[in-house]
Amino acid sequence: MALAGPVLGHLDPQFLALLDSTNDRLRQVFGSSNALTLPVSGTGSAGMEASFVNFVHPGDPVVVGVNGVFGERMCEVASRHGADVVRVDAEWGQPLDPRSLLAAHPAPAIIAVVHAETSTGVRNDIEPLGRGKGDALLLVDMVTSLGGIEVAVDGWSVDIAYSGTQKCLGIPPGLAPLTVSERALERMVERPSSWYLDLNLLARYVNDTSGGARVYHHTAPVTMVAALHAGLGALLDEGLKAAWERHAECGQLLQDGLVDLGLELLVATDHRLPQLTTVRIPAGVDDAAVRRELLSVYGIEIGAGAGRLAGQIWRIGCMGHTARRRNVLALLGALKEVLGR
Amino acid sequence: MALAGPVLGHLDPQFLALLDSTNDRLRQVFGSSNALTLPVSGTGSAGMEASFVNFVHPGDPVVVGVNGVFGERMCEVASRHGADVVRVDAEWGQPLDPRSLLAAHPAPAIIAVVHAETSTGVRNDIEPLGRGKGDALLLVDMVTSLGGIEVAVDGWSVDIAYSGTQKCLGIPPGLAPLTVSERALERMVERPSSWYLDLNLLARYVNDTSGGARVYHHTAPVTMVAALHAGLGALLDEGLKAAWERHAECGQLLQDGLVDLGLELLVATDHRLPQLTTVRIPAGVDDAAVRRELLSVYGIEIGAGAGRLAGQIWRIGCMGHTARRRNVLALLGALKEVLGR
Repeated sequence: MALAGPVLGHLDPQFLALLDSTNDRLRQVFGSSNALTLPVSGTGSAGMEASFVNFVHPGDPVVVGVNGVFGERMCEVASRHGADVVRVDAEWGQPLDPRSLLAAHPAPAIIAVVHAETSTGVRNDIEPLGRGKGDALLLVDMVTSLGGIEVAVDGWSVDIAYSGTQKCLGIPPGLAPLTVSERALERMVERPSSWYLDLNLLARYVNDTSGGARVYHHTAPVTMVAALHAGLGALLDEGLKAAWERHAECGQLLQDGLVDLGLELLVATDHRLPQLTTVRIPAGVDDAAVRRELLSVYGIEIGAGAGRLAGQIWRIGCMGHTARRRNVLALLGALKEVLGR
Repeated sequence: MALAGPVLGHLDPQFLALLDSTNDRLRQVFGSSNALTLPVSGTGSAGMEASFVNFVHPGDPVVVGVNGVFGERMCEVASRHGADVVRVDAEWGQPLDPRSLLAAHPAPAIIAVVHAETSTGVRNDIEPLGRGKGDALLLVDMVTSLGGIEVAVDGWSVDIAYSGTQKCLGIPPGLAPLTVSERALERMVERPSSWYLDLNLLARYVNDTSGGARVYHHTAPVTMVAALHAGLGALLDEGLKAAWERHAECGQLLQDGLVDLGLELLVATDHRLPQLTTVRIPAGVDDAAVRRELLSVYGIEIGAGAGRLAGQIWRIGCMGHTARRRNVLALLGALKEVLGR
């Protein structure tokens, strides 16, 4: 309904009020009082790029935790923006070791980590990084975690966090919620290579703090913002904790059911995400054929393995509005039939 | 209706077919057979950034025509990406002189021009630039022209063109249609600073030319693509020429009506846009009060002057689905009442 409403002008007072309210809702979901909190006008990867292009000064040492596709992507994006990338790897399917991340460089400008690795189903610990970061900025990818598991930007001393809309927020893809601490604001690049993602300019449109008019930067994607506003409203009406519990319950139901089917999960219990379950493809089973049949016969899409896990695992998302017991049971029943178990 | 449909996965065959069809429709609207034609996952300004970041090599001489806000923006974006910008200015409200643009540098890498300057209501001539560009790439901003006045990417030898969805295409803002000639493809930057807008990577997802699967880059904003597909369908059903004629007719009706009210238009007839009319604010009239009253009492939004024309002009858009005689007549009637004429 929000998507199908009338299209407001991006400087219409009614839209600006909607944007303000959206940013307030984002603060609640991020667990932050950061003044600079906004939806970036692109998908989650635009949020990642905005997070690096605005904070990496040429030659800055940037420690990046890598245990999946999105950690790899962080290295690529950071290096394109001039960072001296210090990689800290963990096996794909294992969590990163916070001590290794903190010990990787004596004085990093940024420590960057993916909270919920969508390519492996692993949850990386953020809290110890906030406690131990010292003078570094802590940059966290919350694309798949926000709304699905506990997130506490201020509580964990995260300086820069971005997300996407289409994961546990349950909103179509197209925007990247982003939040920036006061501490990070002081270290912003003055004139980043990207004009489109320049937070100095975006802040003058997003925030009405100078007591004057909003300064036009680019035309905000008003329809997607309306969808984000409505989706965040639904999430907050349910309650953040209730949503986390719903994801936890559905994830448990799914993971127990997969084990009952004799399948092997990739990630150990203590760092396993409820919203994204990775399961090893049994020997002799045709990866693509199973996914195709699930989609064409049952109308259920599961993800292929990504990166170096392609062909080895399936990734089963149970996020946002799809995280319901009936959906889990339908998938388990369908998979049982397709695998003939 | 397209916006409110089910959200497909960005690798779902049904969505990929929709994307292919969207790109075919974009080719028709751009007047081009360019293989690389796609909606960039951001607003029109992301299209501008993609056009520079993928084609400007450090130190490249880039000639930019400037007769409004968006020409200025081109200079800023090009220079952030390492261009040696050669500005060619014209007075705001006047068209650029193609001979000056062609004579500005002996061997420019790129000549960049805004086709329809949204800040002034001026149409700049593109055809002579295509004829005279020599070895340079011709880069054209078609944000406000596409769908509203004649556009002929191939016919005018344009190498790189981008647009927005919310102007004459009549679709909510959020995507930037982009098209790239074969000639320009050969000069693409191999590893541009922006990962999000890297056309080398985007092409591997958008085009299925390698005979293999699409390569995931970022999650496409599927809902907005569905809206673009539907909106382009409506435009092509009407017929491009019919849409141009409708814009021309409504623009004429509006401009005649404004003159009848005793108001002065900024742009001379031969380079005046039908879809964006600029009119001088009469002496003694309160700019903001008039716009506020139009919005609050009549539900009609007109634009304030932008950049150096702020406070001097109003910008009246008559684009896409709003380009209807009844809307023009309503605005003229309302303005007559508000101005007391």
